[in-house]
Amino acid sequence: MGILYGVSVGPGDPELLTLKALRIIRECDVIAAPDNNTALSIVERVCDIGEKTLLKPAFPMTRDRELLKNSHIAAADELCRYLDNGENIAFICLGDISVYSTFSYISVLVSARGHSVEMIPGVTSFCAAAAELKQPLALGSEPLLIIPSGSREFDLLLSVEGTKVIMKSGGAIPELKEKLRGKTVYAVENCGFENQKLYYSADELENCGYFTTVIVPPDSRRE
Amino acid sequence: MGILYGVSVGPGDPELLTLKALRIIRECDVIAAPDNNTALSIVERVCDIGEKTLLKPAFPMTRDRELLKNSHIAAADELCRYLDNGENIAFICLGDISVYSTFSYISVLVSARGHSVEMIPGVTSFCAAAAELKQPLALGSEPLLIIPSGSREFDLLLSVEGTKVIMKSGGAIPELKEKLRGKTVYAVENCGFENQKLYYSADELENCGYFTTVIVPPDSRRE
Repeated sequence: MGILYGVSVGPGDPELLTLKALRIIRECDVIAAPDNNTALSIVERVCDIGEKTLLKPAFPMTRDRELLKNSHIAAADELCRYLDNGENIAFICLGDISVYSTFSYISVLVSARGHSVEMIPGVTSFCAAAAELKQPLALGSEPLLIIPSGSREFDLLLSVEGTKVIMKSGGAIPELKEKLRGKTVYAVENCGFENQKLYYSADELENCGYFTTVIVPPDSRRE
Repeated sequence: MGILYGVSVGPGDPELLTLKALRIIRECDVIAAPDNNTALSIVERVCDIGEKTLLKPAFPMTRDRELLKNSHIAAADELCRYLDNGENIAFICLGDISVYSTFSYISVLVSARGHSVEMIPGVTSFCAAAAELKQPLALGSEPLLIIPSGSREFDLLLSVEGTKVIMKSGGAIPELKEKLRGKTVYAVENCGFENQKLYYSADELENCGYFTTVIVPPDSRRE
């Protein structure tokens, strides 16, 4: 039986693939590429996938749990047909595979059917954003908080000590701009892509698009 | 003048270097390798550094701010001599360069003297630990909290919603075991090295060594 590899392809720059990710992708005959072709376009720049079977599982942009669950089951069904056939699959995903990836839902289903699953870690968007900004994410005993803008305890998390990285900030930018007024704020839009832009204050945030990572260093660092 | 590159070499497995990290290390004539040779031993397994100049800045294991600051200044002095000479330097570090790295202190000093600094992001130990455990770090709108065991608001951070990753847990293991009793707990000791070990409960934590990453998924995931 084949192995399902969850392969992190990093945040955008194809050179940020790991040696292991590239090797696994090269060795697999089947590539599964969800999320709108972005991961695929990264891979295509460092690896010829012309001879490989390409699967494109569809995951609807919805909060309807039933619809989502059905899309995960349909994807697992399709992957398992190839695994049963002895083919290895590289399921590629943006950033790191353990951070907000659809793969987590699929791998549970595929494992439950007795198949082997492996995860290849990668560079997260927030590590890449910090590197572009040339800013540390965490120093000494500072906590590092990764907070999607839809988190239930968002305001509490914003108030504790540590560096805050705000993910999926797209629609929440106007509100965020108010909440972060007076603080040191950095942001990277479209990190690692040709249209990447860097921002250095909360006031500039209103110009940011959906794929923006916001970094708020601890107040204590200004002392 | 030369460029100082802060190069992340990932958590331990040499295959988790990025293509970019490997290229930069190959292109630099000078390698600076602090932190006890671990980063260097990773690099040596994928790249021949025999012809390169090797610098080993020393950073004392102390909380004495003055001593630490002096060691940073001494390191910056040494690096700047090579940069002034037009040589590029790869300052290699374990995991990701923006997460708890000594490089952050050095780069500020080197930048202030007018030199160019670049950061190459890499795979963090916690992403690698999650991959080894085959566990997601964050799903949906769950926050992800990276908490060094010495954080001032440690107990508060442990109590908020989200996945907690506890770093530098070495000496704090007995206390941690008590605090995490009854929770789902995973841990990876010496992630990516030959003596790597995986743990699946708080009770097992007492056997863990210093280089252990503890992962506590959100209670809500058990519902």
